[in-house]
Amino acid sequence: MASEMRSIGKPTPRIDARERVTGQARYTGDVQLPGMLYARVLRSPYPHARIVRIDVSKAKAMPGVHAILTKENCRIQWSSGDSRNKRLLFNDPVRFVGDAVAAVAASDRHTAEEALQQIVMEYEELPFVLDMEQALAPGAPEIHPGGNLSPNNEGERAPETDQRGDVERGFAEADQVFEDVYISKHHNNAQMEPRVSVAQWEGSRLTVWASTQGISNCRRDLAKDLGLPLNQVRVICQYMGGGFGNKNQCHDFDLMASALAKETGRPVKLEFTRAEDFVAVHGRWPTKQYYKVGVKKDGSLTAIRMKAYSGMGPYRKGSGGVAGAQLYRCPNVKTEVYPVYTNMAVSANYRAPSYPQGVFGIESLMDHIAHTLGINPLDFRLKNMTEKYHDEVPYSSYGLRDCVTRGAEALGWRQKWHPPASDRGAQKQGVGMAMGYFGAGLGMSSAVLKLNPDGSLQVHVAVTDIGTAAKTTMGLLGAEAMEIPFERVSVLSGDTDRAPYSVGESGSRTTNYTGYAVVTAAEDLKRQLRELAAQSWSVAADAVQYSQGAVYMQDRPDRRTAIAEILKGNPDGLIAQATTDPKLKGVSRNSFAAHFVELEVDTETGDIRILKYVAAHDSGRILNPLTAGSQVKGGVAQGVSMALREELLYDQMTGIPLNPGYYGARIVTHGDVPDVEVIFVETADPYGPYGAKSVGEPPIVPSVAAIANAVFNATGIRIKELPITRSKILDAAPGVRLEGGRA
Amino acid sequence: MASEMRSIGKPTPRIDARERVTGQARYTGDVQLPGMLYARVLRSPYPHARIVRIDVSKAKAMPGVHAILTKENCRIQWSSGDSRNKRLLFNDPVRFVGDAVAAVAASDRHTAEEALQQIVMEYEELPFVLDMEQALAPGAPEIHPGGNLSPNNEGERAPETDQRGDVERGFAEADQVFEDVYISKHHNNAQMEPRVSVAQWEGSRLTVWASTQGISNCRRDLAKDLGLPLNQVRVICQYMGGGFGNKNQCHDFDLMASALAKETGRPVKLEFTRAEDFVAVHGRWPTKQYYKVGVKKDGSLTAIRMKAYSGMGPYRKGSGGVAGAQLYRCPNVKTEVYPVYTNMAVSANYRAPSYPQGVFGIESLMDHIAHTLGINPLDFRLKNMTEKYHDEVPYSSYGLRDCVTRGAEALGWRQKWHPPASDRGAQKQGVGMAMGYFGAGLGMSSAVLKLNPDGSLQVHVAVTDIGTAAKTTMGLLGAEAMEIPFERVSVLSGDTDRAPYSVGESGSRTTNYTGYAVVTAAEDLKRQLRELAAQSWSVAADAVQYSQGAVYMQDRPDRRTAIAEILKGNPDGLIAQATTDPKLKGVSRNSFAAHFVELEVDTETGDIRILKYVAAHDSGRILNPLTAGSQVKGGVAQGVSMALREELLYDQMTGIPLNPGYYGARIVTHGDVPDVEVIFVETADPYGPYGAKSVGEPPIVPSVAAIANAVFNATGIRIKELPITRSKILDAAPGVRLEGGRA
Repeated sequence: MASEMRSIGKPTPRIDARERVTGQARYTGDVQLPGMLYARVLRSPYPHARIVRIDVSKAKAMPGVHAILTKENCRIQWSSGDSRNKRLLFNDPVRFVGDAVAAVAASDRHTAEEALQQIVMEYEELPFVLDMEQALAPGAPEIHPGGNLSPNNEGERAPETDQRGDVERGFAEADQVFEDVYISKHHNNAQMEPRVSVAQWEGSRLTVWASTQGISNCRRDLAKDLGLPLNQVRVICQYMGGGFGNKNQCHDFDLMASALAKETGRPVKLEFTRAEDFVAVHGRWPTKQYYKVGVKKDGSLTAIRMKAYSGMGPYRKGSGGVAGAQLYRCPNVKTEVYPVYTNMAVSANYRAPSYPQGVFGIESLMDHIAHTLGINPLDFRLKNMTEKYHDEVPYSSYGLRDCVTRGAEALGWRQKWHPPASDRGAQKQGVGMAMGYFGAGLGMSSAVLKLNPDGSLQVHVAVTDIGTAAKTTMGLLGAEAMEIPFERVSVLSGDTDRAPYSVGESGSRTTNYTGYAVVTAAEDLKRQLRELAAQSWSVAADAVQYSQGAVYMQDRPDRRTAIAEILKGNPDGLIAQATTDPKLKGVSRNSFAAHFVELEVDTETGDIRILKYVAAHDSGRILNPLTAGSQVKGGVAQGVSMALREELLYDQMTGIPLNPGYYGARIVTHGDVPDVEVIFVETADPYGPYGAKSVGEPPIVPSVAAIANAVFNATGIRIKELPITRSKILDAAPGVRLEGGRA
Repeated sequence: MASEMRSIGKPTPRIDARERVTGQARYTGDVQLPGMLYARVLRSPYPHARIVRIDVSKAKAMPGVHAILTKENCRIQWSSGDSRNKRLLFNDPVRFVGDAVAAVAASDRHTAEEALQQIVMEYEELPFVLDMEQALAPGAPEIHPGGNLSPNNEGERAPETDQRGDVERGFAEADQVFEDVYISKHHNNAQMEPRVSVAQWEGSRLTVWASTQGISNCRRDLAKDLGLPLNQVRVICQYMGGGFGNKNQCHDFDLMASALAKETGRPVKLEFTRAEDFVAVHGRWPTKQYYKVGVKKDGSLTAIRMKAYSGMGPYRKGSGGVAGAQLYRCPNVKTEVYPVYTNMAVSANYRAPSYPQGVFGIESLMDHIAHTLGINPLDFRLKNMTEKYHDEVPYSSYGLRDCVTRGAEALGWRQKWHPPASDRGAQKQGVGMAMGYFGAGLGMSSAVLKLNPDGSLQVHVAVTDIGTAAKTTMGLLGAEAMEIPFERVSVLSGDTDRAPYSVGESGSRTTNYTGYAVVTAAEDLKRQLRELAAQSWSVAADAVQYSQGAVYMQDRPDRRTAIAEILKGNPDGLIAQATTDPKLKGVSRNSFAAHFVELEVDTETGDIRILKYVAAHDSGRILNPLTAGSQVKGGVAQGVSMALREELLYDQMTGIPLNPGYYGARIVTHGDVPDVEVIFVETADPYGPYGAKSVGEPPIVPSVAAIANAVFNATGIRIKELPITRSKILDAAPGVRLEGGRA
């Protein structure tokens, strides 16, 4: 009977699907307030320059112009904009093309734009550097005092280093040593909704309608940077149009809108153009990865050495990590990552920040090693994949091996795999695979649950639904825990004034953090209901049981009293709250994935067509197969785009980005993305709510490498620098055509 | 040290004062939503009629008209509109001039108004009755089946009766028996903000921006009448422009806006005109009070008998009570109240619903008895006032006697009182007094408190500030209980999505109900803080103390650790919730007041000028003297208006109200209201939060009677029918002038 009631595990459309598709959903850009002003931002045309003169007098005199902020009258520090150096809203020197130098609030957008043109900004150009390795070379232009190697958390100028064993001994033990270099590029998160913020002051209280992945953290940062107590800041984000990691925390546009609203005494809306969106916020950090791997004849690994550079742009907002080497069992590993300042656009978090680029490197190289040793890449992985975190710590639950075997079976790997470039004609088919993992953290978050007197439930959580259907998930968890129909549950979120703190929707954490709090609060609600019943029946609380929206005496399960009956005459209903902070005990908790691709390369045109795509995922128990499946498909779409299309190109002479925007950056569209067969290997993780782990970030992790490996299997061409464009295929193709052919 | 921190008891401006006076506050009427339609209501021109024909075709064909509701396509029952009979949104027969017959939603107000004129409504007129006693006479038009005496809670057609002792024996024991009749009129609550509602559906979820005194109850009623679970209804009222009792629960305009929004798929705003506001909602019930009182020669009371009629209009929304007789010690009391249906406008709650009219009657009569017996009215009260509820039950705290003596002293009663009409000229001065009381109930309400990691506090309560500064009071209670500065506290209210249930702001209950919950939740927060500290210091929880935003070891009060320090690294802060339902133990809990008036009557013009007004109140401990004082002054203003000005006049031939609106109803303006000297007799009530009782409703209670008694003392004219207009003075004045004169 209880199992009939279960909400989780059933495909459930998102609770706000109707509003989202009918245009009823009110996104931040839809916010209109009486008397609202519109803001626009003036940006540096130089990658590195000192500001010599500012004259805003002409702009300020324009009718309709209400306020102009520059470095001369606004010294607000944007603390989450650069975790290692001081970054102001308006910096001098400017350090990339797009660095903000002024913001105007005017009666309408057009006036604001015109005012930007009337602002006089004189610059003294400084030498600049775009390339990561050049930035570290002696004599390179210094972007921040102390040089271009960004300091680590301890403030030291040293690479982020991870090591076990002794790689030199490992190489000495190897039968063969492979060395190679892999390069990934800066590309933008390219979410649908642009950056937009509306700020309004009521007395000393600030309300910001933000497009943010985490209203709680956005509030925290606004309060910090503006010197306000937390109770004086409200952040609202009811509907959110995507972020993929670049709408965490508060952003300069939130602060600029707030400062302009303060200055003018009016609400201010600041919305970026698409071009600004691509240049002025951040994208994924580009990397250059040097590998050296030692292998025995039998294919077992003796040493992995990686030295990588990550280009952070001129401000340090992200870790710059390069992850992937830890997929393999190997006694001797050393990885070093150098996060480097350059005068390119800022780089920081984008879905699974450190992973797809690192996995592209290591999984391409492992594929190459398998090929060289004459081992089927599938067998090579099955032999060398580790089943422990960093080859040491047990996983809380582990499904990667099943992902690999089930994914391979679904693609038909054993039937389809062939030596590289076996097809004789220009159309060459091939298969590729790659593995991936992503941490599924646990941590502190809160939920408040209100059980209405009619038995309906309101779940208050500060969760922003960035496209993951997180609000729906929180509702499903509430319904499941209370054993009531999902239709009886509302999720109230998106407003720091109505929800308790929740970790932002980033790091694939929402289900693990806030979901845990929801379930815990529901347990308290059930306890309260049992106690109320026990009290009215004059029995001990433990004689009363709860199930499916009703209480009953333990020995009379047939005589059930519904919630509404228990709460009769109680207009308040019941309230429960939980702040939970679960801890892992001696284990590491990760989600896993293995992707398998079959594709066809036209070596005469360079065109790549994906024929079949299988994504096998261990994300623990799947709470909502419908939306979890969408997450996988969305991640694959971005993986395809990263593998085959996207790169923010720079004019090397001027430091000007050449192709900001959807069209220029060649973001994939629906027509470019293959059907994806999603396989969930459902482990039941002992730490997650109902066994769930993370599902949001993992899908992009193995995708790029799997595609690159399939291109190699089809053509024998190993593209080591992303994206795998037509021209790169064509440049390499003639030589390939000469190589062998399918029997 | 602790006493320096206290927030309560200090005059504190309301937290949203700045927003209210600068126009920043967003009232319901300010709500603008994209695509919003505007609604208007067509109303019956007859006091009683059957609808014969409806034709909306012409109106519906008008460009811009989106929907028309009538009884033919809308059968929604408005359950809080009539607690005894079924009331639909659109009734047939119509039962008063102003009964709604159709509602139109159109692209703008003007189109909606024009459409009303194009609706064809044919009526068959029915006989009607306006007078209460006539309505009960045989053969009177039957407004509802079963006759015009409105049934009581048990459904019986019987008066509301209250009695103790044996009045007949009491009259037999009396030396003298007085009989008299007092009449009060229907007058409108006349709050500044008109009735307005904005409704919007998102899928199956309804949001109503209401102008309501209680968002929780409004939500409950909307859910009930529209058949929705509570989680599907959200009610928002952030700022509210007054109600004084006629914005409790949900109203027909809330339901009409919701129904029109559903019908059109668009947000709908429905705002009443001022005339509609006066006629179509409700005002105070008119009464006719027959008294018979037995007295001994020494002035002691032997019996009080009252038979009263209350005119409820055609729908029963209020109790119709007539209160006041219980002010006196008397062994034999019998009161009967007949709530009667008439074809006048609906009558229901208006500030201290049953009191000012009943106190006008009994306090006028007692004044008259004192005069007749030759006893100073002050001494008569001091002798006969009871110090127990219904002369039986002890009060939880009692300050009425002090109110009487301190008020009399402040006015200079002993110096100023003289025999009636002592002044010889046309300008006659006199003094009057009256007593009053009002129940200060306790009951269930909830609060959720969030202590931010920086030590600032958010108080979540569903309190609507209807002008009482209730939000400020909740903040003061939170600050006081946490011993932190008031500036560190925000009150988050006005939205059922962000606050737990709170009793509506009616019945002077907010401080007693919700305030209690705030204090209780704060106690839990302090407990949590002590436990966190104890845990981190590895000591027992009871070794840790809390005061003024810091914890310390009991034996080391000098080493204090601030909240922000305790919560370091905890992004969530702490949450506490309380649902409290305090119960009285063998006592009655009331607030008390005695008002003293000195005025001058010009018997040649009928003009009355108040010279001095003293209002002495026992409202327990005063949490905020500034806003409590404003409550008293506001109540007196309404009392002056009720005493001297207001009456909704009816054309007796047509049943049409003649003077709906501020100007027609002669509402007092600032220029008409005297300065009021407010005295607070601060008892410390053991049940209230920090000793508080009720302060909102009491101030209007004794005001009318005190003024009437002063008019009598000045002129010797006893006006027994409100309002005390110039013409009534002039009609009575000539005879008076002949009576004696001051020595």
